[in-house]
Amino acid sequence: MDVYEAIKKRRDVRSWFLKRHIESAVLGRILNAGNYAPSVGLSQPWNYIVVRDIETRKKVKENVEEKRMDFYRSLPDEKKTKFNNIKIEGILESDLNIAVTCDFSRKGPDILGRKTIPETSEYSVVLSVENMWLAAISEGIGIGWISFIDPESVKRILGIPEEIKLIAYLAVGYISENHDTPELEEKGWEKRDNLSNFVYMDKWGEKPDKNMMVSLYNSKF
Amino acid sequence: MDVYEAIKKRRDVRSWFLKRHIESAVLGRILNAGNYAPSVGLSQPWNYIVVRDIETRKKVKENVEEKRMDFYRSLPDEKKTKFNNIKIEGILESDLNIAVTCDFSRKGPDILGRKTIPETSEYSVVLSVENMWLAAISEGIGIGWISFIDPESVKRILGIPEEIKLIAYLAVGYISENHDTPELEEKGWEKRDNLSNFVYMDKWGEKPDKNMMVSLYNSKF
Repeated sequence: MDVYEAIKKRRDVRSWFLKRHIESAVLGRILNAGNYAPSVGLSQPWNYIVVRDIETRKKVKENVEEKRMDFYRSLPDEKKTKFNNIKIEGILESDLNIAVTCDFSRKGPDILGRKTIPETSEYSVVLSVENMWLAAISEGIGIGWISFIDPESVKRILGIPEEIKLIAYLAVGYISENHDTPELEEKGWEKRDNLSNFVYMDKWGEKPDKNMMVSLYNSKF
Repeated sequence: MDVYEAIKKRRDVRSWFLKRHIESAVLGRILNAGNYAPSVGLSQPWNYIVVRDIETRKKVKENVEEKRMDFYRSLPDEKKTKFNNIKIEGILESDLNIAVTCDFSRKGPDILGRKTIPETSEYSVVLSVENMWLAAISEGIGIGWISFIDPESVKRILGIPEEIKLIAYLAVGYISENHDTPELEEKGWEKRDNLSNFVYMDKWGEKPDKNMMVSLYNSKF
């Protein structure tokens, strides 16, 4: 699949998972896409825990339900109904889950480029997640990043050591459909804004000139 | 370009920039790739400051030189020579720079999925950077993520408000060559490890069985 097509098609999926098994070769390609990501000083600080076990996933799902209720209670009344229409996870419906972690000690202390910005280790892991997301959609596989979790609880469920940071918890599976519009936009929760809102020239706050603005609009793909 | 090819070809570029102008339409496609990235609760917390002005870039470069010397002095002697062979930035040689920032206040306080993991705002911006990186290489354009900076100094140079976080500073330009091997591996600084080192099954520390291991090896692309 063309890289621009993958970027445009990629959705954060919760609702359309099929009961179809992901073969090891396909899973291997997706994980290898992750391992080809850039990482600060080539430190590759990631691990991928592939979770197929249903009992483990049920425990994670319980944790999500708690966090979902916390958020629900925190919302103003007019947002509560909207929120209830939104599916926030697909932990059991997906074929497998992947927990993606960050090991700050990987490859020793002198990581080139990290001293000034320690977060670059975590950022490397996130870059790896995007590679997997794009590889997956090119295989007909959807991914949902489930952030309604308490990371410390999920670490305990998966036996992740204290010094390792849980960065992402993903639901992964073949999908029956895929929409052009993000689900949060379909459900009226939030809408995606045009690029031209976000671009400055040379300095914060300096909008591009008219020609550049026209280019930003016309270069949508 | 095929998404797997882009993922494999993408390098962190410092050395091979050409003096070729990036047209607005091409830049627009790359920035739009960034704006198509997943973001927590569809919050799109990113801004892209396109820096063409040479005086501004010279100031950033000065900051990099300081930070480069700090790191050099912190290294054990046997690593100092190796480090001196490595180019850590291409701020002036590239056609333009892009500073990528995170606005935590974007789209109000009730960002869906952020309460449990506040870092998901920053992570969204990082996902956006990877989209741009892959779109760029498919256009023949290389990107280098320059982390040898003091983010607060660069924020002052670019007039970025205090509450906005600088996530990435990128050098962007057409490239004359592209290598299969990361530069840090070519220069003997660090080597890229195989995926099989990083995969666990169901629980931290549980290695995949032999069949799965074979799949992980054979599924390289």
